[in-house]
Amino acid sequence: MKHWFKSIENDVAGTSYSLDKVIAELNFDADGLIPVIAQDEKSMKVLMFAWMSKESLDETLRTGKMCYWSRSRQGLWRKGSSSGHSQTVKSIAADCDGDVLLAEVSQVGFACHTRRHSCFYLRFWEDKVTLIE
Amino acid sequence: MKHWFKSIENDVAGTSYSLDKVIAELNFDADGLIPVIAQDEKSMKVLMFAWMSKESLDETLRTGKMCYWSRSRQGLWRKGSSSGHSQTVKSIAADCDGDVLLAEVSQVGFACHTRRHSCFYLRFWEDKVTLIE
Repeated sequence: MKHWFKSIENDVAGTSYSLDKVIAELNFDADGLIPVIAQDEKSMKVLMFAWMSKESLDETLRTGKMCYWSRSRQGLWRKGSSSGHSQTVKSIAADCDGDVLLAEVSQVGFACHTRRHSCFYLRFWEDKVTLIE
Repeated sequence: MKHWFKSIENDVAGTSYSLDKVIAELNFDADGLIPVIAQDEKSMKVLMFAWMSKESLDETLRTGKMCYWSRSRQGLWRKGSSSGHSQTVKSIAADCDGDVLLAEVSQVGFACHTRRHSCFYLRFWEDKVTLIE
């Protein structure tokens, strides 16, 4: 499955491939999903982690707005469609074995459903975990 | 499964919980694993994405060095144990539903097995994907 990504890993910086080819080689899991990390393009904070199906990735690339796959609702999750807290895509990258995506986004409002900027607000410190936001 | 994280989401910033309690409530998946995002503490670049078991998380917290779970080898993956490219933990955070971890690390050498700083070196841009590192 991961042979194509292996085959290009020694290519030099600046080498390009067709987007269609890379998407066709991405390693979606047994449920047809790929993990996605969303990072704020300005603060560089990691905002959230979610999943995309092929369909939601296609929509994201077509519209420039992050569209995830909701595993609980088993449907497209157009981020911000009810809350208004949408994410505009600034860039997307795939990792070395093509099984994770990283999106830099411009976030309107809050990434987290709790109205915090980032979902990662539970900080481990020594023998405690503290709400940092 | 996620009731505990739900129950604390309206607590105020600064509230603390016992680390043991939070770890006991983390939502490891059906394989006993939790996704982990590693971010460089200085550059804020997302370096890699991997998985931890309860055992590897315990070791990471005990030693202060990132220890993942290798799904391909089905064993503990002490990052850098053969390459020397280890990661010292600066902080760890859990997300709002306790099913993802984010680690800020100090990276020795390269995070990626391809000797690139980050695994996310395949940048999507219009109809192409380009090696950016």
